[in-house]
Amino acid sequence: VDEFDIIRRFFQRPGQRVAPGVVAGVGDDCALLLPTPGMQLAVSSDVLLEGRHFFADVPPRLLGHKALAVNLSDLAACGASPLGFTLALALPRVDAPWLQAFADGLLALADACGCALVGGDTTEGPLNICITVLGQVPAGQALLRNGARAGDDIWVSGHLGDARLALEVCRGHVTLPAAAQGVLAAACMRLQAPTPRLALGQALRGIASSAIDVSDGLLGDLGHVLEQSGVGALLDTRRTDTLLAAAQHRASGHLPPEWVHRWTLAGGDDYELCFTAAPAQRQAVLAAAHSAATPVTRIGCIEATPGLHLLDRQGQRIAPAPQWAAFAHFSQERP
Amino acid sequence: VDEFDIIRRFFQRPGQRVAPGVVAGVGDDCALLLPTPGMQLAVSSDVLLEGRHFFADVPPRLLGHKALAVNLSDLAACGASPLGFTLALALPRVDAPWLQAFADGLLALADACGCALVGGDTTEGPLNICITVLGQVPAGQALLRNGARAGDDIWVSGHLGDARLALEVCRGHVTLPAAAQGVLAAACMRLQAPTPRLALGQALRGIASSAIDVSDGLLGDLGHVLEQSGVGALLDTRRTDTLLAAAQHRASGHLPPEWVHRWTLAGGDDYELCFTAAPAQRQAVLAAAHSAATPVTRIGCIEATPGLHLLDRQGQRIAPAPQWAAFAHFSQERP
Repeated sequence: VDEFDIIRRFFQRPGQRVAPGVVAGVGDDCALLLPTPGMQLAVSSDVLLEGRHFFADVPPRLLGHKALAVNLSDLAACGASPLGFTLALALPRVDAPWLQAFADGLLALADACGCALVGGDTTEGPLNICITVLGQVPAGQALLRNGARAGDDIWVSGHLGDARLALEVCRGHVTLPAAAQGVLAAACMRLQAPTPRLALGQALRGIASSAIDVSDGLLGDLGHVLEQSGVGALLDTRRTDTLLAAAQHRASGHLPPEWVHRWTLAGGDDYELCFTAAPAQRQAVLAAAHSAATPVTRIGCIEATPGLHLLDRQGQRIAPAPQWAAFAHFSQERP
Repeated sequence: VDEFDIIRRFFQRPGQRVAPGVVAGVGDDCALLLPTPGMQLAVSSDVLLEGRHFFADVPPRLLGHKALAVNLSDLAACGASPLGFTLALALPRVDAPWLQAFADGLLALADACGCALVGGDTTEGPLNICITVLGQVPAGQALLRNGARAGDDIWVSGHLGDARLALEVCRGHVTLPAAAQGVLAAACMRLQAPTPRLALGQALRGIASSAIDVSDGLLGDLGHVLEQSGVGALLDTRRTDTLLAAAQHRASGHLPPEWVHRWTLAGGDDYELCFTAAPAQRQAVLAAAHSAATPVTRIGCIEATPGLHLLDRQGQRIAPAPQWAAFAHFSQERP
């Protein structure tokens, strides 16, 4: 593997525009960026591994999209706007059609989000995709995990659990009826091509008191906010149960209510934003969601006493099953 | 592998100081950094893989050092000062003593260089160490690869080839006499614990016309400078041959002159700086080297005509063996 040839051949395009703020990109010892004065720099690194984060046979174009999307989701959760990213790629072999499709998916999302590929590294080895994304946010306005206060509303964007549904179908744990193939296709796109909620994150600056992206399951990720803010939470499962886009198929009997419950609360790979805001900000939250063209749902409230509780279908306060709140990034290895 | 526990347990230390410019570090969706106003941000990512960049049995403390050092070397080559870094670690298993030693080596160098660990990711998978380093450099003063001009001197810092000597001994291709074990130990440290030339890179701002770090071999790396600057070069092998610290053992017959020649010109893993500067800057270069406590050697000059030539031991102009100039990062797999 010749790293220079690979970068030139697949990841640099003729007529590629240099993004604003990028002074020198791929091809020097370092990329040089010039953040806007008064902005803080936001940085996050995420790795995607075959078998752990994606199936070996995932279409490479979708994989390229997802590898960048999960990193952009971290910027979104901070309310940052993208500046650029580096790509460190370990490849078992140089498979030109695979690389071309991977680069196409990656760069299409990069272009759409104004996030330039500024540097990277390629090496021969077991497939490993490591992306570091750089963004900027006005100093002091970043959304952090430690700002949730007792009485705040808890909100979540978009849908939860559909990526997990798709995963369970791929694993053969769940079978959907033929009539549900459209729903399954939509769920697969949620799993394979998540949409980072960048516009929403930026619109929530000055409104949300805390935020996190839901990558490992709602309960686990919200747990980090609770821990870092020193508070507790009460979630209404009558609201979270509605967040599965495929929930209408519950009635068909193919999706037991218990599964819907579990996937929405602890599914993983959702890449939605979970955030808190004071009740006085409800109209501002809805206006931000509207401006970002991203639906949001109010699912609970922050409590002063640490701990995470649920309201069940009868409105009774219960503790979640312990394993739901624990971090356990599920593997995409075939069973 | 629970990423949060691993980061807390091994990579966060009680009383850890938050570095200047780091607003929020490990533990949020993004790290937040505040570069100094007027500075450009320098970013580089490098991956280290077992078998390719290090032996499976390398002491983990040295590996931790090296993983950060090779990234800091890229900052050095740009004349940037370190701000912070992210660590994305794929681990086959949680081996506590290994992780503790790895973290110790990594964080010792991080502390010594003022480069804070600001974020990261840990995953279960084949061992893969991906570091992204962030630095800053006064706007417009970064050392780039495209500034070499005909007539410029070519300089290199420190020593070349000793890392390759150590590698060849480890591979069993070379045997040194018992009396040379001290030399071998020094060469092994060059291979396993390189010193990033950060002080020299910063001291060369405004003096050097171009710079690169020598990671893949002098000829190959200098070739990138020549290509991006649109120039050629003439190197004097009577000078480069002296750059092997272990060269005194040449006389012993254990190091054939041809090997010394090849290792200094195309050894790899040196992490020295190769840079160019106008002849009028010779005193300034030497003063910068003195201030950085880093020896430098003038090894040739830039020519207007593209191409790379050598002066051989008789002062005759020759072309280098083609394979020397080509990028070919050697593997550390045992033969």
